[in-house]
Amino acid sequence: MSEGLFDGVLARGASGAGDRAWLQAMLDAEAALARARASVGQIPGDVAEAIAAACRAEDYDVASLGRDAVGGGNPAAPLAKALTARVEGAARGEVHRGFTSQDVLDTALMLVVARVRPALLGDLRGAADACAALAAEHRDTPIAGRTLLQQAVPTTFGLKAAGWAAGLDGAVARLDAFRPAAQLGGAAGTLASLGGEALAVRAAFAAGLGLDDPALPWHTDRGRIVGLAAALGGACAAVAKVAGDVVLLAQTEVGEVREATGGTSSTMPHKHNPVAAVSALGCARPAPGLVAAVLSAAGGHEHERAAGSWHAEWTPLRALLVAAISAAAWLRESVSGLEVDAERMRANIHELTLAEQAATALADETGRERANELVAEAAREGRLPEGADVDVGAATGSAGALVDRFLAGR
Amino acid sequence: MSEGLFDGVLARGASGAGDRAWLQAMLDAEAALARARASVGQIPGDVAEAIAAACRAEDYDVASLGRDAVGGGNPAAPLAKALTARVEGAARGEVHRGFTSQDVLDTALMLVVARVRPALLGDLRGAADACAALAAEHRDTPIAGRTLLQQAVPTTFGLKAAGWAAGLDGAVARLDAFRPAAQLGGAAGTLASLGGEALAVRAAFAAGLGLDDPALPWHTDRGRIVGLAAALGGACAAVAKVAGDVVLLAQTEVGEVREATGGTSSTMPHKHNPVAAVSALGCARPAPGLVAAVLSAAGGHEHERAAGSWHAEWTPLRALLVAAISAAAWLRESVSGLEVDAERMRANIHELTLAEQAATALADETGRERANELVAEAAREGRLPEGADVDVGAATGSAGALVDRFLAGR
Amino acid sequence: MSEGLFDGVLARGASGAGDRAWLQAMLDAEAALARARASVGQIPGDVAEAIAAACRAEDYDVASLGRDAVGGGNPAAPLAKALTARVEGAARGEVHRGFTSQDVLDTALMLVVARVRPALLGDLRGAADACAALAAEHRDTPIAGRTLLQQAVPTTFGLKAAGWAAGLDGAVARLDAFRPAAQLGGAAGTLASLGGEALAVRAAFAAGLGLDDPALPWHTDRGRIVGLAAALGGACAAVAKVAGDVVLLAQTEVGEVREATGGTSSTMPHKHNPVAAVSALGCARPAPGLVAAVLSAAGGHEHERAAGSWHAEWTPLRALLVAAISAAAWLRESVSGLEVDAERMRANIHELTLAEQAATALADETGRERANELVAEAAREGRLPEGADVDVGAATGSAGALVDRFLAGR
Amino acid sequence: MSEGLFDGVLARGASGAGDRAWLQAMLDAEAALARARASVGQIPGDVAEAIAAACRAEDYDVASLGRDAVGGGNPAAPLAKALTARVEGAARGEVHRGFTSQDVLDTALMLVVARVRPALLGDLRGAADACAALAAEHRDTPIAGRTLLQQAVPTTFGLKAAGWAAGLDGAVARLDAFRPAAQLGGAAGTLASLGGEALAVRAAFAAGLGLDDPALPWHTDRGRIVGLAAALGGACAAVAKVAGDVVLLAQTEVGEVREATGGTSSTMPHKHNPVAAVSALGCARPAPGLVAAVLSAAGGHEHERAAGSWHAEWTPLRALLVAAISAAAWLRESVSGLEVDAERMRANIHELTLAEQAATALADETGRERANELVAEAAREGRLPEGADVDVGAATGSAGALVDRFLAGR
Repeated sequence: MSEGLFDGVLARGASGAGDRAWLQAMLDAEAALARARASVGQIPGDVAEAIAAACRAEDYDVASLGRDAVGGGNPAAPLAKALTARVEGAARGEVHRGFTSQDVLDTALMLVVARVRPALLGDLRGAADACAALAAEHRDTPIAGRTLLQQAVPTTFGLKAAGWAAGLDGAVARLDAFRPAAQLGGAAGTLASLGGEALAVRAAFAAGLGLDDPALPWHTDRGRIVGLAAALGGACAAVAKVAGDVVLLAQTEVGEVREATGGTSSTMPHKHNPVAAVSALGCARPAPGLVAAVLSAAGGHEHERAAGSWHAEWTPLRALLVAAISAAAWLRESVSGLEVDAERMRANIHELTLAEQAATALADETGRERANELVAEAAREGRLPEGADVDVGAATGSAGALVDRFLAGR
Repeated sequence: MSEGLFDGVLARGASGAGDRAWLQAMLDAEAALARARASVGQIPGDVAEAIAAACRAEDYDVASLGRDAVGGGNPAAPLAKALTARVEGAARGEVHRGFTSQDVLDTALMLVVARVRPALLGDLRGAADACAALAAEHRDTPIAGRTLLQQAVPTTFGLKAAGWAAGLDGAVARLDAFRPAAQLGGAAGTLASLGGEALAVRAAFAAGLGLDDPALPWHTDRGRIVGLAAALGGACAAVAKVAGDVVLLAQTEVGEVREATGGTSSTMPHKHNPVAAVSALGCARPAPGLVAAVLSAAGGHEHERAAGSWHAEWTPLRALLVAAISAAAWLRESVSGLEVDAERMRANIHELTLAEQAATALADETGRERANELVAEAAREGRLPEGADVDVGAATGSAGALVDRFLAGR
Repeated sequence: MSEGLFDGVLARGASGAGDRAWLQAMLDAEAALARARASVGQIPGDVAEAIAAACRAEDYDVASLGRDAVGGGNPAAPLAKALTARVEGAARGEVHRGFTSQDVLDTALMLVVARVRPALLGDLRGAADACAALAAEHRDTPIAGRTLLQQAVPTTFGLKAAGWAAGLDGAVARLDAFRPAAQLGGAAGTLASLGGEALAVRAAFAAGLGLDDPALPWHTDRGRIVGLAAALGGACAAVAKVAGDVVLLAQTEVGEVREATGGTSSTMPHKHNPVAAVSALGCARPAPGLVAAVLSAAGGHEHERAAGSWHAEWTPLRALLVAAISAAAWLRESVSGLEVDAERMRANIHELTLAEQAATALADETGRERANELVAEAAREGRLPEGADVDVGAATGSAGALVDRFLAGR
Repeated sequence: MSEGLFDGVLARGASGAGDRAWLQAMLDAEAALARARASVGQIPGDVAEAIAAACRAEDYDVASLGRDAVGGGNPAAPLAKALTARVEGAARGEVHRGFTSQDVLDTALMLVVARVRPALLGDLRGAADACAALAAEHRDTPIAGRTLLQQAVPTTFGLKAAGWAAGLDGAVARLDAFRPAAQLGGAAGTLASLGGEALAVRAAFAAGLGLDDPALPWHTDRGRIVGLAAALGGACAAVAKVAGDVVLLAQTEVGEVREATGGTSSTMPHKHNPVAAVSALGCARPAPGLVAAVLSAAGGHEHERAAGSWHAEWTPLRALLVAAISAAAWLRESVSGLEVDAERMRANIHELTLAEQAATALADETGRERANELVAEAAREGRLPEGADVDVGAATGSAGALVDRFLAGR
């Protein structure tokens, strides 16, 4: 997204959360306010359109705005100045009028989120769909059920993949419920410089941007920010669960799945790194700390505008947005076309995961007590008793029915 | 809630999240499973009722169960053993059958949350209502608008209090949206030991407890846990905003509000500590870190059951639940009957917060340029020009309309 | 340590951080102040001794003190009252004199830390020593080197175990560097109620408790708390690395190590859960969030005493202390007597991890280019070319020398 | 430091932690390895010098390297390629030989830290010195001691400023104790590709860069990273304490301090925002969450190299480094030349903070009981009894002696 040395390393599909996207969103806010004021007659329509016409990100230099923001506390003021310099006549006095810097930046954040969300949701849904497809295809493929990283009893890969899909579906639902809202309050939230039509201006402003128009300015009510951070952190958590399982199943010693596009190496030809899943984990792992950083800031906004807490939101929130977008994109790549080795899954199942079934089967012949003894004796040598009639499929309980139920309800 | 040296210090109204409540919830899960199995004919009804009859927390000793849980990884196994010891005959073999420990504890967590939520929501709503009442009463009470903890331009205390209510309303909405769900999966999530009626048993189990019946077991899909932690953390953030403002407004040098029940001291008779707001802050401050701790755990559950991450959820999640409940209860006390000193609010407003209004007023006589000069000159001495006709009320913009709009929409 | 339902589940060796230990530490602070005041002649020696004689935790009821602390903000005031009730005559007026509550609790925290540290360091060192012993014993035991959970090139189990020891040694060094300090400042940190001998009283107070006597009260300078939390969090991180590796090596499909005391089950006789390592992970995982919670609180202490931040430290800091103690104890159990299957380690090494060695060996006969082709061809079938002369030991580079260097330097 | 829209907003003096500094550090690592290998005779000296001569950051394009790093997981590989392209002949085959990417990046991180540390320590010490100077100058300047943001009893501004200095001194000591170390291990930490001289190469490599040469590679022993994050987080916490107090003392209603360079505004001429302190807070507030993010990553590095956790360290660690540097720089500006209004401090002290002194004074005449009654009566009207002889200076206890003791011990 950006041009830095590290920015692209794990980032994926995150240009919509990059500087240029922020710049355009800030300009869109400026244009929308001008038009909203025109809509209630505060300024002539052509003045508003002159301002709006100058609101194209490609006409501005990010680096130069960034430099002008140094010490000023935020990039809204230098942008307003640069925008003013690109208009003429009456428009000059009307640029940014009614805004406080936080109005511009909070609104821009919401626009950025609203704009990147479809792609983010698309990747989460794409990953979930790929998992659901695996669930359908492998409804009856046995795999070792593992608890505490030890084989316990059999399950199916279909049920495992359905669980992955369910987690991602949940993340989608939580992100989808977030409602981006416009911010307009002026210096102390009273809309004082927008006169008697202030509420009408605000309604038009929000409508023009396709954002909610909340009853009150939310300069220091950061519930929306908390909700956003939580939804992004939740998406990272859901991704991390799936990516972690893929990495574990792809271990050399397990070998049950393999990424279609994993990296290879001439000096280590056996190595098939699950690069996409590992990258997804790399993106997702810092998320809890980033959420904490956002929440710390979001809970302490003093009075009408905070002494530092607002500024404190930017670094972790922007990092979290990039992390969630990238994690979802990597995971989608990982699970789309994941190569599943059903034979290896079956072969890996330790015989003794069927010990209880074997004992039950033997009990018909020998009685329960003796059956248990026979199984215990054999188990000491790491095998089942000879003649124990076991069937992995029968040991997977309601796995198939659970998959059916899940897929039917999606 | 508990008997510890520190447990009650800040806790308030949190007994519903205490050990005894957990114990009853675990027992309720045991009873509900027995009845659910009876409902599909797996066990006789009287066996289920015999088990259910033994599921009363008052018959068990928390400390002794806690001791028996040492080393076992969780208290579900010792409880199952203790419950078995309290039933007779056929019931002995049916206690806990079909459960894995995580089924019991995840379900118990959800029951605990479902049961404490009404009181938590009640306190958040009570606090919000108290703030809304302040907003109505002080719709037109001027107060200094403060940004970066400096007086900026005037606003109203009504608008400030409306903002508090809005933040709390948002926290209510997010907590209210959380849906507690039953957990039932057995050893590897396949419900293998519940036979062909497993899904029917699960449905009856969930219904019996008044919980959702999700399509799949969620032993390692921790989205619900993430969502719960986020909602609790969000409640703490909303509380912290209001409590922080109360503490700032109650400063000796500001003196604009005063808690009705604040602490006094014979040696420091002037001191009127905003004890409830400070306690609310004490509860709310660790919340971001606790949320991070829950999210760290919740994103890393391996395969069918996690190697430590599930256990890792308990300490921060239980602390977060107590924190949110207590923070809300303290804040409700703080803002209910908050004494507002409207005269002090008016008197505290620095004359120069009206500088722009003064300049505008003078401009009619002297022209804008001269008016600005006159204001600047006077401002150097910390006052407005003589004869400048200012009106604080007129400087509060749309504050009143914003309050009306907010109150009408609640 | 405590009597709760969950307290003992993962806690291990943590009774020194429990309520009774805190109570004794608070009483020790009261006794030390009385004696310190006597040492400068502020009160008679027998008054001090009368107070000190009443400072035995076993004479007080934790639960009752806990209840009396409700609403008071901390347990120091009820304890001072209870202590006063246990002395007579002149001593009654001298109990707690010169203290503010925070003096008692900060000092008690430092005493608790000073007292549990030897055991915590003992467990960390014990675990490190066990790892170092494994490093010595398995200096030349080949094992697959794994990166991104894929086999890469061979290393030795000795080098791996040395790395574990090094991480634990580092954690020991950081914890050992922490210096517990006495806290004595009175209401606003000026020691006003201790008269002209205040600094001498403070010095005697600190000396009597074996704690540092810092130049200034540190009621709102929480660097010590930050340093303590970081050292505890660092210990948890070092433990988590080792425990995580043990769990991975103990996987059913890897089977290279096995805990001596792991849990078994009659229904799953093959399962040998690495219970101690999993418990260590369960303790360690929430640590980063708990550290964040402490740091959030520790950075915001206003003026002479904070409005909530001090109270906010307790829950996460006490949880962190228990977590570190328990994690270290579990890890020590896990690695002490860890069963190492050197044959399985050797057998698990994938032939192709030696591909580069094979190519180099063949190159002598065929030239480098042809050798690479031969290896690549064979690798496509998952093996090395016939006749390729490979030696795992030779592929482990300086592993042995690194172990020697490390062990020599411990 | 960077060219982004937000990067410069709060950053200050952080160019040493920027992309170009990282690039040079990576190149320095490459040059040092070549020279180290030459020093033991593995390659000719002129080959090493040819490589070293190409290791100048100004010859490389950050943006282009950043783009080439996309998908590759880190920027070390593209840099090695670009460096190879800039040398000729035998040098081409020797660039990067013996390194794994993590060797380059971990070493570069340590170099970056070693290089920015003097400036960071300089700012922390500069801020501490400014505070110490304030402590000396205002040794006897009375100010209200405030607890829970309420005036309690008097203290001195000197003692308050000494406490600020003490907190910063502590942060300096913790940062100063951190020891940057070289990283060199190769693919699996065995130094296999550096032959029999591997340890000698590593020693020369570390010495060439002025870094420690630890006994073992630390690819997955992240104690150093934990220690670094903790020290940076601790610096932020110490800064936040001081900056928070400055902001509170600078409140319009308190007005006891004023930043020399605070921002002014023509429309709000009374406003004198403590911009530097607010910026310091903005930098410091996310630090706890960032520390948690680093610790989460640092505790989970699997086997010889981690599946994502290493990558996960970069975003929070780099942000934390910039945050600490900037926070320290802002704070130094804030407290250097801080304007102290000693008269306002004295005037702000509420009469009743001397209630106890007044009662003691009156007691000589009236007896203690009557004196207490008189004080209580008068206090109800917010004043002291007439004729009560009070002296603020006498009420500040050992504040002066504490300042002396502190300054003498620095």
